[in-house]
Parts: sequence; structure tokens; C-alpha cells
Amino acid sequence: MKFTAKQISEILKGQVEGDPEASIHTVSRIEEATEGALSFLANPRYTQFIYSTGASIVIVNEDFKPEKEIQPTLIRVPDAYSGLAKVLEAYDQMKKNRKGISGKAHVSEQATIGKDVYIGEFVVIEDNVIIGDRVKIYPNTYIGNNSHIGDGTTIYSGVRIYSDTRIGKSCTLHSGIVLGSDGFGFAPQQNNNYKKVSQIGNVMLEDNVEIGANTTIDRATLGSTIIRKGAKLDNLIQIAHNVEIGENTVIAAQVGISGSTKIGRNCMIGGQVGITGHLKIADEVKIGAQSGISSNILQQGRIVLGSPAFDISKYKKSYVHFRNLEKLVERIEQLEKKLSDKG
Amino acid sequence: MKFTAKQISEILKGQVEGDPEASIHTVSRIEEATEGALSFLANPRYTQFIYSTGASIVIVNEDFKPEKEIQPTLIRVPDAYSGLAKVLEAYDQMKKNRKGISGKAHVSEQATIGKDVYIGEFVVIEDNVIIGDRVKIYPNTYIGNNSHIGDGTTIYSGVRIYSDTRIGKSCTLHSGIVLGSDGFGFAPQQNNNYKKVSQIGNVMLEDNVEIGANTTIDRATLGSTIIRKGAKLDNLIQIAHNVEIGENTVIAAQVGISGSTKIGRNCMIGGQVGITGHLKIADEVKIGAQSGISSNILQQGRIVLGSPAFDISKYKKSYVHFRNLEKLVERIEQLEKKLSDKG
Amino acid sequence: MKFTAKQISEILKGQVEGDPEASIHTVSRIEEATEGALSFLANPRYTQFIYSTGASIVIVNEDFKPEKEIQPTLIRVPDAYSGLAKVLEAYDQMKKNRKGISGKAHVSEQATIGKDVYIGEFVVIEDNVIIGDRVKIYPNTYIGNNSHIGDGTTIYSGVRIYSDTRIGKSCTLHSGIVLGSDGFGFAPQQNNNYKKVSQIGNVMLEDNVEIGANTTIDRATLGSTIIRKGAKLDNLIQIAHNVEIGENTVIAAQVGISGSTKIGRNCMIGGQVGITGHLKIADEVKIGAQSGISSNILQQGRIVLGSPAFDISKYKKSYVHFRNLEKLVERIEQLEKKLSDKG
Repeated sequence: MKFTAKQISEILKGQVEGDPEASIHTVSRIEEATEGALSFLANPRYTQFIYSTGASIVIVNEDFKPEKEIQPTLIRVPDAYSGLAKVLEAYDQMKKNRKGISGKAHVSEQATIGKDVYIGEFVVIEDNVIIGDRVKIYPNTYIGNNSHIGDGTTIYSGVRIYSDTRIGKSCTLHSGIVLGSDGFGFAPQQNNNYKKVSQIGNVMLEDNVEIGANTTIDRATLGSTIIRKGAKLDNLIQIAHNVEIGENTVIAAQVGISGSTKIGRNCMIGGQVGITGHLKIADEVKIGAQSGISSNILQQGRIVLGSPAFDISKYKKSYVHFRNLEKLVERIEQLEKKLSDKG
Repeated sequence: MKFTAKQISEILKGQVEGDPEASIHTVSRIEEATEGALSFLANPRYTQFIYSTGASIVIVNEDFKPEKEIQPTLIRVPDAYSGLAKVLEAYDQMKKNRKGISGKAHVSEQATIGKDVYIGEFVVIEDNVIIGDRVKIYPNTYIGNNSHIGDGTTIYSGVRIYSDTRIGKSCTLHSGIVLGSDGFGFAPQQNNNYKKVSQIGNVMLEDNVEIGANTTIDRATLGSTIIRKGAKLDNLIQIAHNVEIGENTVIAAQVGISGSTKIGRNCMIGGQVGITGHLKIADEVKIGAQSGISSNILQQGRIVLGSPAFDISKYKKSYVHFRNLEKLVERIEQLEKKLSDKG
Repeated sequence: MKFTAKQISEILKGQVEGDPEASIHTVSRIEEATEGALSFLANPRYTQFIYSTGASIVIVNEDFKPEKEIQPTLIRVPDAYSGLAKVLEAYDQMKKNRKGISGKAHVSEQATIGKDVYIGEFVVIEDNVIIGDRVKIYPNTYIGNNSHIGDGTTIYSGVRIYSDTRIGKSCTLHSGIVLGSDGFGFAPQQNNNYKKVSQIGNVMLEDNVEIGANTTIDRATLGSTIIRKGAKLDNLIQIAHNVEIGENTVIAAQVGISGSTKIGRNCMIGGQVGITGHLKIADEVKIGAQSGISSNILQQGRIVLGSPAFDISKYKKSYVHFRNLEKLVERIEQLEKKLSDKG
């Protein structure tokens, strides 16, 4: 990050007060800022710090009136807080505006690479891979044989894509994701051993899918494990073989979905939910955090909680009574006593 | 993937009808296939599509009788569906038939490398590592000092193996696995700080172990964390220091097993189960998904569910009543009312 | 690992009996040891094996009196078991005593690198990164733009650090950790699509933090996701955007903490706990394994269990009754019958 006051004022269409060549390389809170830092003053409670801050540049509200001398260069904008956010977004865009193929990457001669791509150091792209235009692949990522990456997709450092994976356009894959590892299929043998069932399908992500760090999606036994367009998956999620996740469904961190289960569109699945295999979950279903789903949910828009889960309002009522089970037992004891007294 | 009709017919011992040099590089459903695709026709409902498909080759049942002209080359086999699976398995075997040590790998001169190995780009193999024959190590993997990898083991891209790890023969390790990271051992100090307890043991995998993507297995404090032969672990599992997993035990995704717990052989552990430390679980025990285990299970073959878990049939009965707790409370209220009326 | 008997005796201040140049490269149990192995004899039950062991060196108690001829070189120490541990710790220290920057690493010319660092093969260090003194970065790790790593921190193989991350002094980051991936923020749109909310904050780790393998910590939407000094996080944990973890708080494996939740200091959080977003957890709170936290815990030192969690002793009582719910229902039925009989 490196901006001068002049550059920041251009981003924000604000007014510089002080040295337009003052430059910053980091962002700090006004009370902690040192030279080279950008800061902002929005909350009047922090006004005192602008007279002592070490920040090189401070974004302030247009109407800010200093009562003493001020060291840092000021940039006046209508809203200092959202001004800071705008600068950070501009920085974020700049950071992500990467192009070029590192000479230290290993790109197969039999791969097809689109225009305006970024391929970082120590990336491996195997035979017959097809990379679309404007794809960004950060360092140390692996893309196996015959996988296709759609236009405009970003793949962060250390993603592992096994062979034959299909990834749509404008997807975002965070670090440590594994796509296409073998599904967990083992056939029991007579001697208590297990024999591996070949996993010869693949993983398919449609367009605009975003997947969080260290999430794993297994390849299908046959056919495809499918994440439909617009679906958003958080970190550390497990998607087993032959699962299908519907359009625009949102799944929170650490959820696990077992083999061949089909989730509808526009569902919302809370953190740490577990769903067993071969189920069907209807559209717009909401599943509360830590729930366990062991049977189909066929009614659209149903909201469930618990393990096994049932209707959320009913679950909450049951749970209130669970918390008071001891008192309930006492009431039963009293009834028994009364009745026995009456004997 | 690249096969001609002739090659496919040889794999399937089928009969070619059309151009034996027709070639495919991908697999598609018959209704979606375009040039260069292999497809199959097994379900009569899809027969209509064989007259319009863009597929270059279609596998059909022996007795298929076209009613119109057909573009693609046909391959006739007794069972078209299993024929497709056979072609994909042949492709799968070919893909995995890798040999050679990449010039872009970093292999210590003090490592010992077996015959017919594959070592991919940007793999790091440190001092005194011993790699057996026919071992395959995919790109971007790290193998620390003094670790041993047995014959015929496959290690996919991005696996992290700390020093002194022992891995048996014919194991399969999927991407993102971490073996041998420090166990979670910290001794509380008087000032509320924690002092790290040295983790100077290692991880040992016996033969025929398969481990899923992003699973973590910590090294022992002293001695070994052990996974016995034939055990199968799914994705995103946590195995803490000094745990031992018995032969042929199968563990589903996202299970966590705390330090020093010993699991017997032929057990089956469902997804997202948590097991606390220093426990003993007998052979052939089955633990339902999302259960929590906080005491020993010493009876062989016991089946448990719940958190804390108890016998599955009893758990299910309790849970039925839990779902109806509100009605149960109403019944108690009525009893109280009746009894008070009688007062 | 390579030690001679003489070196080991110096580490242990013990006495060599036999060839002081005898050397070992591995550690084995006395009953399994072969040439080149170090072993120890502490438990008298194993004394028989010292006469037949293939070990090259055996650590024995000072007062051990052989009754037959012995092949291996002996090292006599006051306590053979802790002697072995000392040798392993010495080995552990040696292993970790790495220095030098690999010529196969990619270090930006615009990065600032401290003294006595170790940077392994295929590490990528991007522009404007600042690496402190004595930092160790193992192979295949990625450190994004403008991140700072404090003195004496160790980063194992395959860690992914996104841009602008701040890491304190003497931290330990295990393999597969992801720091600074985007927080899970998506604003629903009218057409059921989601629009990504820019995640322009960062991740900040204070000093003496240790984090386990494959744990993920998301960057803040704005500001910082913060792990305070001395906190210890186990493997496969999910920390969402804008979370704050207090000083010396200890978190077991597979815990998930949702966005903007603040955890106090000296807390202990059991494995697989889930905590929803925007909560406040007081200092010294203890949360039992697999609990779900969906409301603030404002009382210091409270101990809770359950999902949703409440006081642990009350939870345990409720759970005892839950286990016996069927009997409870029978008692209610009997009451109803009796009362109806009395009619």
C-alpha cells in the first residue's frame, strides 16, 4: 500500500490541507498512528488525538475545525469513516489487479491459457488444462490435468484442484481449498478389510461461486459433484461425492454434507450442521447451526433446528423444557407422593 | 483424456460402428455432448438424443437398433453404462501412471529415493528422507527430515509431512493433509501464561491407510500417534497427539479425537463425532454422527448416539419424547390440576 | 537425527559403557530396535530385551546391573526415561535450528528481511513484506503483500498469509493455516443473488500466539480480526471476520467462532464448540466440548455446556433425565391411569 495525499484526495474527491506529497503505507487508529500511517477522525470523542497523532495523513469530515496546530496532512470529505473504506477498497482493487505469468510457474505446454491472466510463482498447471481470460492464480496452487477454469475466476494461494475439475466464470476460491479429492467410498470385504471404490467422476462449479479457505469438495464416484451458480460456501466445509448444492444457497463454516445429498436453491445452512447422505433438501430451507439432518426436508422454506432437526419453534419449546427437566421430575414426584398419600 | 474409438473398443472388447479413428477428449451426457465428447446410451428414454447428439463416440447396448441415420461412431457392448465406467477407470489408471522426478523438485542429496517413483514440481524432500519404490508425490508437497514413505504410497498435491513421520506401504494421502504438526500441549503458568510442552514424538501410519483432504494428525508428545493398517479417514478430521486408531477402522469427515485416546479395530465413527482424551474405545464399536464421547466404551460392538452418547435405541426413544416435551408438560399440568381440583 | 554415544552422554551428562563412537539415527522400543537405533530401558519388565536387542545405544538407569553380556553401548543416567526425552528435545532443537534463505525461494526485492532468518524452498514473499530477525519460514509457504512477521516467529510449510497481515513475535503457525482470507460477507439482492461485501480489513496476531494446522482466520471487513498475546488455537478452527480472541485464551480443535464475536482472556473453549456472531464472552469462561453458544456470557468464569449452552451442572442434571425420559413418561402414564381409575 502506498498512496500520497494527492492520490487519496483524487479517490475521495476531497480537499487536501497540507502537503499533497505526504505519503502513507499503512492504516492505523488515530491514537496509535505513527509516521507513514493513514488515519481518520469521525467520532468527536477522538478529536483530542488529532493534535498528537503521528499519522502522516488524516481523513476528516468537511466541517472539522481544528482548535490547535495540526501536524498531519488533512483530507476533507463529507464522511470521514466511509472515506477510509473507499481508500481501502481502492487499495484492495489495486492489490488484486495482477497480471502476468511468473517465470517460476510450471505451465504445461499442453495447457491453454487465456488473455490477461495472472499466474504466480510455483503454480503448477498440468496437461490439457484450459484457463480462461482474466483468471488470477496465486502462488503455490496446483491445477491437475484436463481441468477448466472459467473467465474472471480468482484462485488464491495453495488451492489444490485435481484433474477434470470444471470451474465456471467469476468464481472465487480461497487458500487451501481442495477440489476433486477422492470420495470416501470403500466396499467392505470378508476379512474386515475395505476395497477402494474407484472415484472416476469430477467436481463442477458453476459461475459466481465463492468458496472459503480449506473447504474440501470430493469428486463424484461417477458423474459430478455440483455447486450451482451463485452458491457461497464458507471455510472448512466438507462436501462429499455426488452432492449437489443449489443456486444461491449459502453454507456457513464447518458444515459437512454426506454423499449424494441434493440441496435446493436459496437455502441457508448454519455453521457446523451435518447432513447425512442420499437426502433431498427443498428450496429455501433454513437449517440452524449445529443441526443434524438425517431425513429429507421436502417442504420449501421450512426452518429446522436440532440433531436430528425438526421445526425450529417446536425445538425451542422442547429445549426450554429440557433445561427445566429437573423441576419437571420434581413435579412428577410430588404428584406421585400426593397420589400415594391419598392411596 | 484422449481416446480413439478403436482404443475404447479394445478396452471394452466391443464393436466399432463408424470411424475407428474418431477421438474424444471429454465425457458428456448424450443430450449435452459436443464434438470430441464420449457419451453413452443406456436408458431408452434418451434414445431420441442419439440422432441429434454432437458426441463423437457413443457407447450403446449391443442390441441397440437405430431408426434413423446416426452421426457419432458407435461402440457396441453388452452393458453401455458399465462400459462408460470401464473407460473412465482406464483413464483414471492412465492418469495415475506417473513416473519421473521433476527437475523443479527439491530433493536433498541425503534423501534415499526408490525405483519408479514420481516426484512432481516444487516438491521438497528434506535430509534423510527415505522414499520407497513406486511412490508418487504430486506437486507442491513437503516431506520433512528423516521421514519414511513406504512402497507404492501415493501423496497428492500440497500434503505437509513433518520430520520423523513413518508412512507404510500402499497408503493414499489426499491434498492438504498435515501429518506431524505439534500436539496441543501447553502447561499453565502462574501468570496465566502457557508454556509449550515439547512434542518430540512422531506420526506413524501403517500399510493401506487412506486419509482424506485437509485432515490433520498431530505428532505424539513422546512415542507415536498411530494409524493402524487398513484404517480409512475421511476429510477434515482432527487426530490429536498420541491417539491410536485400530486396524480397518473407518472414520467419517470432521471427526475430532482428543489426545491419547485409543480406538479399537473395525470401528465405524460417523461424521462430526467428538471424542475426548485418554479414552479407550473397544473393537467394532459404532458411533452415530455428531455424537460426543466422554467416557470409555469397553463393550465390543456397542452402538451409541448422542452427546454424551449412550445406546442408540435408548437415545432414539429419549429423543422422541424430547420432541414432545411440550405435550408431556401439558399432561403434567393437567394431572396437577385434576389432583388440585380433587384437593 | 544422528548422534554418537559420546554426544548423547554429553547431552545427558551420563557415562558411556562400550564404544563411544557408536552412532544412532533413529529411536525404537528396545524389543523392536535394530542397528542404528537408540533405545532405553526403564521398566524392569523389559530387562530381558537388553540381551537380545539390536539397538546400537541403550540409555539405562545408573544402577542397572547386567546379568549377561550386552551388545549395545550403554549410557548410564539417573533416569533412563527422562534421559530419552532429553535426547529427543536436543534433536528437536537441532532440527529447528535452521538458517539461510533458499535460492529456490521467491523473495520480492521490496521485502525487508531480518537477520538470521530461515526461508525454505518455494516460499513466496511478496512486496513490502517485513520479516523480523530469527524468523523461520518452512518451504512452500506464501506471504502476501505488506504483511509483517515479528522476531522469532516460526511458520511451518504450506501456510497461506494474505496481504496486510500482522503477526507478532515468537508466534508458531503450523502447516496449512490460512490467515486473512475474505470474511464471509454477502448482501442479498432482490433476485436471490448475493453481492460480495468487500473485506478490506486484516488479521492481527499479537506475540506468543500458537495456531494449529489447517486453522483458518478471516480478515476483518474493516479493521482487524485479532488474536491477543499468548492465545493458543488448536487445529481446524474457524475464526470469522472481526472476531477478537483475548489473551491466553485456549481453544481446542474444530471450534467455529462467527463474525464480530469477542472472547475474553483466559477462557477455555472445548473441541467442536460453535459460537454465533456478535457475542461477548467474559474472561475466564469455560465452554464444554460441542456446545453451541447463541447469547452473551457476561459472567466471568462461568462454565457452560450444551447447545444452546447453560450452566454445566444444570445441563448434566437435565441430561440425566433426558436419558431416562422413557421411564419418566411411563411414570406420567401411571399417574394418569391411577387418577382416571379414581375417576
